[in-house]
Amino acid sequence: MNQKGLFKKRKPPLGSVPGSLNIDEKAPFPEIRLIEFDGDYLREEIIENLDELKSIVFERGKVHWVDVQGLGDETLIRKLGDIFSLHPLALEDVTNVPQIPKVDEYENCVFLCLPMLRMDDSSLVTEQVSVFVGETFVLTFQERYGDVLDPVRKRIRRNAQIRNLSNDYTAYAIVDTIVDNYFPVLQELGNELENLEDELMEKVAREKLKELYVLKHRLAHLKRLLWPTRDAIGRISRDESKYFGDQISLYFRDVYDHVMQSIDMLDLSRDLASELMNLYLSSTSNRMNEIMKVLTVISTIFIPLSFIAGLYGMNFHYMPELSVKWAYPAVLIAMAIVVLIMLFFIHKRGWFRK
Amino acid sequence: MNQKGLFKKRKPPLGSVPGSLNIDEKAPFPEIRLIEFDGDYLREEIIENLDELKSIVFERGKVHWVDVQGLGDETLIRKLGDIFSLHPLALEDVTNVPQIPKVDEYENCVFLCLPMLRMDDSSLVTEQVSVFVGETFVLTFQERYGDVLDPVRKRIRRNAQIRNLSNDYTAYAIVDTIVDNYFPVLQELGNELENLEDELMEKVAREKLKELYVLKHRLAHLKRLLWPTRDAIGRISRDESKYFGDQISLYFRDVYDHVMQSIDMLDLSRDLASELMNLYLSSTSNRMNEIMKVLTVISTIFIPLSFIAGLYGMNFHYMPELSVKWAYPAVLIAMAIVVLIMLFFIHKRGWFRK
Amino acid sequence: MNQKGLFKKRKPPLGSVPGSLNIDEKAPFPEIRLIEFDGDYLREEIIENLDELKSIVFERGKVHWVDVQGLGDETLIRKLGDIFSLHPLALEDVTNVPQIPKVDEYENCVFLCLPMLRMDDSSLVTEQVSVFVGETFVLTFQERYGDVLDPVRKRIRRNAQIRNLSNDYTAYAIVDTIVDNYFPVLQELGNELENLEDELMEKVAREKLKELYVLKHRLAHLKRLLWPTRDAIGRISRDESKYFGDQISLYFRDVYDHVMQSIDMLDLSRDLASELMNLYLSSTSNRMNEIMKVLTVISTIFIPLSFIAGLYGMNFHYMPELSVKWAYPAVLIAMAIVVLIMLFFIHKRGWFRK
Amino acid sequence: MNQKGLFKKRKPPLGSVPGSLNIDEKAPFPEIRLIEFDGDYLREEIIENLDELKSIVFERGKVHWVDVQGLGDETLIRKLGDIFSLHPLALEDVTNVPQIPKVDEYENCVFLCLPMLRMDDSSLVTEQVSVFVGETFVLTFQERYGDVLDPVRKRIRRNAQIRNLSNDYTAYAIVDTIVDNYFPVLQELGNELENLEDELMEKVAREKLKELYVLKHRLAHLKRLLWPTRDAIGRISRDESKYFGDQISLYFRDVYDHVMQSIDMLDLSRDLASELMNLYLSSTSNRMNEIMKVLTVISTIFIPLSFIAGLYGMNFHYMPELSVKWAYPAVLIAMAIVVLIMLFFIHKRGWFRK
Amino acid sequence: MNQKGLFKKRKPPLGSVPGSLNIDEKAPFPEIRLIEFDGDYLREEIIENLDELKSIVFERGKVHWVDVQGLGDETLIRKLGDIFSLHPLALEDVTNVPQIPKVDEYENCVFLCLPMLRMDDSSLVTEQVSVFVGETFVLTFQERYGDVLDPVRKRIRRNAQIRNLSNDYTAYAIVDTIVDNYFPVLQELGNELENLEDELMEKVAREKLKELYVLKHRLAHLKRLLWPTRDAIGRISRDESKYFGDQISLYFRDVYDHVMQSIDMLDLSRDLASELMNLYLSSTSNRMNEIMKVLTVISTIFIPLSFIAGLYGMNFHYMPELSVKWAYPAVLIAMAIVVLIMLFFIHKRGWFRK
Repeated sequence: MNQKGLFKKRKPPLGSVPGSLNIDEKAPFPEIRLIEFDGDYLREEIIENLDELKSIVFERGKVHWVDVQGLGDETLIRKLGDIFSLHPLALEDVTNVPQIPKVDEYENCVFLCLPMLRMDDSSLVTEQVSVFVGETFVLTFQERYGDVLDPVRKRIRRNAQIRNLSNDYTAYAIVDTIVDNYFPVLQELGNELENLEDELMEKVAREKLKELYVLKHRLAHLKRLLWPTRDAIGRISRDESKYFGDQISLYFRDVYDHVMQSIDMLDLSRDLASELMNLYLSSTSNRMNEIMKVLTVISTIFIPLSFIAGLYGMNFHYMPELSVKWAYPAVLIAMAIVVLIMLFFIHKRGWFRK
Repeated sequence: MNQKGLFKKRKPPLGSVPGSLNIDEKAPFPEIRLIEFDGDYLREEIIENLDELKSIVFERGKVHWVDVQGLGDETLIRKLGDIFSLHPLALEDVTNVPQIPKVDEYENCVFLCLPMLRMDDSSLVTEQVSVFVGETFVLTFQERYGDVLDPVRKRIRRNAQIRNLSNDYTAYAIVDTIVDNYFPVLQELGNELENLEDELMEKVAREKLKELYVLKHRLAHLKRLLWPTRDAIGRISRDESKYFGDQISLYFRDVYDHVMQSIDMLDLSRDLASELMNLYLSSTSNRMNEIMKVLTVISTIFIPLSFIAGLYGMNFHYMPELSVKWAYPAVLIAMAIVVLIMLFFIHKRGWFRK
Repeated sequence: MNQKGLFKKRKPPLGSVPGSLNIDEKAPFPEIRLIEFDGDYLREEIIENLDELKSIVFERGKVHWVDVQGLGDETLIRKLGDIFSLHPLALEDVTNVPQIPKVDEYENCVFLCLPMLRMDDSSLVTEQVSVFVGETFVLTFQERYGDVLDPVRKRIRRNAQIRNLSNDYTAYAIVDTIVDNYFPVLQELGNELENLEDELMEKVAREKLKELYVLKHRLAHLKRLLWPTRDAIGRISRDESKYFGDQISLYFRDVYDHVMQSIDMLDLSRDLASELMNLYLSSTSNRMNEIMKVLTVISTIFIPLSFIAGLYGMNFHYMPELSVKWAYPAVLIAMAIVVLIMLFFIHKRGWFRK
Repeated sequence: MNQKGLFKKRKPPLGSVPGSLNIDEKAPFPEIRLIEFDGDYLREEIIENLDELKSIVFERGKVHWVDVQGLGDETLIRKLGDIFSLHPLALEDVTNVPQIPKVDEYENCVFLCLPMLRMDDSSLVTEQVSVFVGETFVLTFQERYGDVLDPVRKRIRRNAQIRNLSNDYTAYAIVDTIVDNYFPVLQELGNELENLEDELMEKVAREKLKELYVLKHRLAHLKRLLWPTRDAIGRISRDESKYFGDQISLYFRDVYDHVMQSIDMLDLSRDLASELMNLYLSSTSNRMNEIMKVLTVISTIFIPLSFIAGLYGMNFHYMPELSVKWAYPAVLIAMAIVVLIMLFFIHKRGWFRK
Repeated sequence: MNQKGLFKKRKPPLGSVPGSLNIDEKAPFPEIRLIEFDGDYLREEIIENLDELKSIVFERGKVHWVDVQGLGDETLIRKLGDIFSLHPLALEDVTNVPQIPKVDEYENCVFLCLPMLRMDDSSLVTEQVSVFVGETFVLTFQERYGDVLDPVRKRIRRNAQIRNLSNDYTAYAIVDTIVDNYFPVLQELGNELENLEDELMEKVAREKLKELYVLKHRLAHLKRLLWPTRDAIGRISRDESKYFGDQISLYFRDVYDHVMQSIDMLDLSRDLASELMNLYLSSTSNRMNEIMKVLTVISTIFIPLSFIAGLYGMNFHYMPELSVKWAYPAVLIAMAIVVLIMLFFIHKRGWFRK
């Protein structure tokens, strides 16, 4: 459950030429899907031969969405970079994951880099999606195979209306789908937190503390992803990049609102977690108080009694009271009186009140 | 009392077309009231047939306030959207509650989205009000049936003066009424807090801690609602939107001041709550100190005495002092001296001072 | 000593027309003083008949300071509003106290709303002063009768030089006097804090904690008053309102510096109070440590001894050592050795060092 | 060692005319030194007769540095104000110390007000230096006699090169010398802190806590002095005041960097102090744990043993085991077994590990 | 392991002429390497005679990288300053290390001052690199001999492509290499932290607390280095200095992203460290609870039993129950019942649950 490896990052060896790609050996082999469409036309294809891509994607009047899943082949990715004339630094950002979410404007395209969130068996998985938006194409890179962008594909297939729309709308649809995926993750974390809250309200348990600790850590991690995402999308919705029309900025403002809502939920969770930590600490303190009270009540009552008993257990030859007949019951009564006094004293201090 | 469901939000299924409405099944059926008026004329009506609305609300020279209570019918709300040419994204924000409070400017109207606060049996209820202000109409959406805006209606009925005023003044009256409703809620929370303060000053109780925790949580929640409300209203009072005249911005500056006062009260409450938590923690610590002092005083006095008694309870055959006649009183006196020494030592340490 | 009623605020009933006045029933009846002067002329008068005011205060070439003390008559205040053509929202801010300190520019005057601070029997009293500065008049409203502005009056009477100066200089003199009154209050709070510090350094007392708590609360309250005061006066010193000449902005910059010094003192007090809270908490912890040490030292020494004594108090028939003659002194020596070992062990742990 | 009098400030009586000087009675009598120089010429003199000053200091082509040490004569200081035509508010800031560090631009000069720091017998002394920079003069006021600016004088005497430079360079040299004096003070505080750290790492001592508290307080005080100093010097290095040439702003940027480094050291100290407080608190907690462990180990082992011994110390007539011959050794063995079980139990809980 | 000497800084004596160099006596003697190259030409040389440098480095069309390692000779460094016409204040910043990272624009060059990080035997070493970028030269100063910039040299030797590029690209390559060196250091610190986390999760140890303390301190130190580094590089990537072409700003934006990632890792570490401190504190609290529980359980069970045993150990002559035959077993049974009651009571309080 521990979130290990937070400090690992794929970097090329020190002193590499800028633009060096550092491909993880275990990264899956890239699979390239092309969707080409306009209002009347739709073509979906798995691209095997990169060369034919070049002649297709720059055709005006159509939208070309090239979706690359898996980053496991440096040659192929470099070739894609050549075809789309991607800047070496942008290509570096695609492979050397994770990058801080951002938007960079290059000469022939806009480069967007966003995190994708997923809960996998109650552990948080983050993946980077890189989106290039050019005049005639949208090029996306995902780290692993996945069907997160399937809803976009379905909408394109189903709906001629979106097909009439331009390139930037497609980009918007992709970004919107990615951002909408944040909510279920945040809701699951929020629910986990509320469960933890219920458990901590009931009893004080050390494991729960560790769970809370791990949860707080995750929330801190998410914060680091979502804030720059907000900035990146905010820039698109404000800036007048030539690759995003005026119409579309209204839509990106909506996406921006969605990211803000995610951050709002996140902040609420973080507040809640901090408060829980406080609650836990004061509960521990309270509990200690209760334990100490029991110990003190028991000790306060019995230690003086034991002393009295010990007193008459002494073996002095001349202890006149020992031979007095009513001495034993008198001592018992004296003990009872001591108990009553002690109980009264304790009661007055209010220790029996909860 | 626990504020569950903080992380629930109505969202359309992932990958929906932007502008998808996600209607809660339990949402009440919309009831549409039209108030149409100018200085000389006043007409109030429950609208059943939406079609007639279209011919009415764009008439110049009159103010048309259409108040929709309940969001439980998608078709009807879409139709309203068509009639008033609302942007699909704005319509989405109306139904997919709660949104972060904001103001968005569209081509034919300004869209405002504000929270409405209410205390219901000491639990805090928040509801979203959406306000569209066009050139000839004010369109409001409330989540549930409610009479919060009744004072505005009454003023319109009673007061010909307001009826002479324009569309934007009506919008101002509505927003002002909503914002004025924040004070009683904040005052109730503030009073709750002051009661808690009194109780915590007196005794240390675990349930009070939980109440405090819940209260802090609510205050955090309110903060998230009021800050963006402030920004939204601040934008209206500064910006020169064509739907709000120059005159009216003075009034919105006043509303802005009211929101600021709410936030001020809220911040005061939040500070107070944090301080209370600290006070509680140090009280617990203090209490522990007191308990430990009692235990230590009792132990320090009686444990040495018990040892002396135990010593003369030993059964050795040759303990010469046992047969000495004044040994018993001597030991009793020795014990008394031990007690005095211990008391002096404890006194010197200042443990009897409060 | 508790600062109750922090969450009370005079507000008109919900849904009132904007500009509704909400007069506290216990508010004193307004007393209106007029001071009219120029370099050669000085007239001071209590005004009974408001109508004559109208003909006086708009005369050019003279300064007219109208000082209203007490807000207890709605009709009279409304009439004043009519005479000076005050905006209904500004008039509302005069009576519905407390407002957040601010400066608002209206068509015919500038409206300033500032807090006045006073220590009354070691409890902090705040009052709102409203200042309207027009072309020919300065109009001030105070909540209660008071002589805070007397120094200004004296200077006007005494000093022909100030009488030569304009309207805005009079406003400056008033604001400067109000702001200078902050220092003694802050100094008294600071001294209280330093006394508390001395007491807390010496002993750990629960009542002191509560005093500290109340003091922190007051400081938080003051912060909320002084920060917006700073902003308001900062705006006057920067802006070029037509009611404040260029010369005067230099003087308001000086007032601004004074407010900044107040805030500086306040922040220092707040820091000091937070540190004191920490010190208190660690002192409590320390004290607990000391108490525990005493308990543990006593227990560690006597519990083993008591066991040995108990051992030879057993009544077994066959305990050969009981009949040995030197057994008793041997056991006593053994006990002494146990004590020495325990003392050595405790000494090694450094428990006797302070 | 306690930093008393933090809340004292020399202020004229309430309601004084702005520009009132409030001279401390104990302030030393002003001593006025004039240094007049250009590339070829140098004259140093103690000025007794102020009247001759007037004819000297406005001569163009030469730099006139008038250094006033001590503020103890109001007439003299007012006369100086007249000679140099200083604004009454600026003169007020010179005498009513301490002011918040700042820079103010007046018509005929720039007014700079900076703190001077000194460690005196391990207590922090702060003094205000006021610097007026006119076209032909630099006028400095120090609260007390002192040789802090001696290095500047020496450089002027020694070095013809600086004498060729202008007025503003002299001002720079003075400010630079003042700011360079911050480092030794900060280093001494830093060293004190590191010593405290070493001591706290070794043992837990209450006096050290108080020392830490006093140190934190001083650092907070310094922060309040250095931040506005930074702003003031930053403004000079950016603004294009006519009294500071373009060349000199490069030098003031360097002074600005020095102030930033001071603040950096200060912040580091403050962080360190906060961490130390945390460390102290957790050390106290740890120590308590250790003490409790000793108590619990001793109690856990001996309390059951004592019970067994007490059991066989009972005086019932019919306790068959008492007369059994091997009963005594058997009980001893049983006790040993109890001890072993307890030790095993304690060992399993890991209490003997440090 | 303690990070001593944080408050030491090489400063020239107070009152020195600005631009004074303060050379550490132990600083190594400077070694000057020249790399001169263009697309077709490459020359690497150790420069002994500074005079020949002057004739080389201003030749247009070639890149001249002069790398100075070691600052131990003031004359030599001053001479270098003369050759390259460096501003005295810049030269001061080169030798009086450490400076706050920054970028300063001078007339004939841009001056950059950056920290270099290295882990040396698990202690953090920081060194300042000063970079001057002129029209025809790049001049770097390192405090000590080192091979951190070797990768840049290798790339220049190997790769004709970089040799075709200009001066500013060389500067970029140097800065990029320095910044890339931050990652391994941050990763090592992050790993240390994660190890500490594992250890603290398992047991509560005081030394670990100190390690954590030292680690937090280092992270605070790094934060102070990296934030101004970010600002400095941000300024280069934004500003249009004439020494950095438009092309290169894209590359510096990439370096900026790398610094941001470092800061991100750093912040994550700092958050983690704070959380660990909290976790540690609550673990200590928990542990105390457990210890107290053991003590209380043992005391609660045995203290009453001991009292009963003591009661029947009294020597009164008339204690009728002593002679009753079944009294002894009856008392034993009574004791067993007391134990059961106590266990039940303890069980009900939930003390046996973990």
